Amino acid sequence: MNILVTGGTGYIGSHICVELLESGHDVVVIDDFSNSKPDVLESIYKITGKHVKFYEFNVLDEEKTESVFKDNKLDAVIHCCAFKAVGESVQKPIEYYTNNLMTTLVVAKMMKKYHVPSIVFSSSATVYGDPEVVPLTEDCKLGVTTNPYGATKAMMERILTDVQFANPEMSVTLLRYFNPIGAHESGLIGENPKGIPNNLMPYIMKVATGELPELGVFGDDYDTPDGTGVRDYIHVVDLAKGHVLAIEKYNTPGVHICNLGTGKGYSVLDIVHAFERVNGIKIPYVIKPRRPGDIATCYADPTRAKEQLGWVAEKNLDDMCRDTWNFAKQFIK
Amino acid sequence: MNILVTGGTGYIGSHICVELLESGHDVVVIDDFSNSKPDVLESIYKITGKHVKFYEFNVLDEEKTESVFKDNKLDAVIHCCAFKAVGESVQKPIEYYTNNLMTTLVVAKMMKKYHVPSIVFSSSATVYGDPEVVPLTEDCKLGVTTNPYGATKAMMERILTDVQFANPEMSVTLLRYFNPIGAHESGLIGENPKGIPNNLMPYIMKVATGELPELGVFGDDYDTPDGTGVRDYIHVVDLAKGHVLAIEKYNTPGVHICNLGTGKGYSVLDIVHAFERVNGIKIPYVIKPRRPGDIATCYADPTRAKEQLGWVAEKNLDDMCRDTWNFAKQFIK
Repeated sequence: MNILVTGGTGYIGSHICVELLESGHDVVVIDDFSNSKPDVLESIYKITGKHVKFYEFNVLDEEKTESVFKDNKLDAVIHCCAFKAVGESVQKPIEYYTNNLMTTLVVAKMMKKYHVPSIVFSSSATVYGDPEVVPLTEDCKLGVTTNPYGATKAMMERILTDVQFANPEMSVTLLRYFNPIGAHESGLIGENPKGIPNNLMPYIMKVATGELPELGVFGDDYDTPDGTGVRDYIHVVDLAKGHVLAIEKYNTPGVHICNLGTGKGYSVLDIVHAFERVNGIKIPYVIKPRRPGDIATCYADPTRAKEQLGWVAEKNLDDMCRDTWNFAKQFIK
Repeated sequence: MNILVTGGTGYIGSHICVELLESGHDVVVIDDFSNSKPDVLESIYKITGKHVKFYEFNVLDEEKTESVFKDNKLDAVIHCCAFKAVGESVQKPIEYYTNNLMTTLVVAKMMKKYHVPSIVFSSSATVYGDPEVVPLTEDCKLGVTTNPYGATKAMMERILTDVQFANPEMSVTLLRYFNPIGAHESGLIGENPKGIPNNLMPYIMKVATGELPELGVFGDDYDTPDGTGVRDYIHVVDLAKGHVLAIEKYNTPGVHICNLGTGKGYSVLDIVHAFERVNGIKIPYVIKPRRPGDIATCYADPTRAKEQLGWVAEKNLDDMCRDTWNFAKQFIK
């Protein structure tokens, strides 16, 4: 198939491009490098021996986006482009809502106009809000999102669901990611966020490289085995493979919703200790107060992904820690 | 004060302009006449003896909107412009989400850039979803909206709330309308929607003028005194007066949320019979199946509006029926 990946040079998008190319698909990418670098394209080529067809601009530019739909016979869209920094979203809500909602609306408009039947959307477990029960199944009620970033994900899910209802021939897939970490085993692509990371593994990575002095652990008095927050970490390559399967299997009209998580919960300290053990690097940390909006425990019930997509996470926590460091080493100062 | 009313020639916007002008405020209006006509401006002048400063375009046009903020020293915005036809929103979700969300984001952006401290937003009781209890207070949980129109209102509330959090000097007021009906007592302004109306009173009006043969009543087996749905109808002039008070009293930083309803519930048949009695016109009706998404009973607890704004609805159901017909008579074929 010929697949457009918006945000295809970003952390998750680039891993999706690799898995699509390796599964024999053709890939078109739109990205404005707002949170990535051009050399990602070279890395994708090094890994796969294949090129994506690349366009550099923001999908907000409706005219340019239309030209991509006009010039390429697309079979499907994987819509990854979005601003994603939780803390920044609180400070810059207008920018986050405008960028994330409008890019989705432009993509939906062009899919309708150019009869592209299928979209896979990068959603997030954040749409469940504070979980009523864990593990979270796709039938759990949606909750109140605690920041504008999360709110945009919930809104984009709603928008795409309503677009599918008005266009019943469409296939809309909402993939709810748990906590993607790790990097491609080649070490050529991975995540290297600018500034102070919001998420655990990028923070650990910056402590390991010496860019930051120590890790802040927000709260050690949660109702969890060691008191720190428990999350479902998923290797980004497993996540990317889930997209390939979703594109191939959720090709029937309707709205398809699927969690992508491992079903296993690890605490902050589990991750720290695993990273230290696997890579032989000490990660100093300090306990800090809880962050508002953080919850104790969140992990997926991945049953549906197994049943409907034949997908199970193949990589374990040691793989995630090893591959993160294998990618991160290049940034040692 | 100098107040921008977006959508100021629409049904609710035009009544707000009249009340603002009569309270001594200056009014700037942006409207693209997508659901109104230029002669509304003349009607506002006939009623008040004063002109609004008028600009014709869609607020989506960021450049033109910016020029209005640049050329007028605005003290506040009353943000009414939005697509509002429930049924159409189900058919055209992309258009509804794009128009309603983006106009709100453009307004927010310009308020921030030009330091306009205060916004009053036209929200709706639809954000409560299927009510857990009636009467509805502002502390009731928000619910699942049943159509894209309602979803845009809930999203716009969330966006403005997050914008206020990031800009704590701002005053954001969310006025949750119940069911505005009626018209200005002059008969010069009112509601005359194009096509088949979604709402009860415009439908009754079109039956009264002969444009439609009979009223469809959707369900007579609800758990209500006569089996038809019960709603809180509020005279549009009362509603407009609530905006003037909100502009004047909710001028402190923060998010202010206030229901505008009468606190009284009337059934569909109550309205039909009142309209017949007050105006001496027979309204033939037929009972039809329930509409998906409709609820049995919904009315406001208007305590907060009384306590915080000193606002109470002054007009009764007979006024609403009489003023509707007084406006509608001009459309008799």
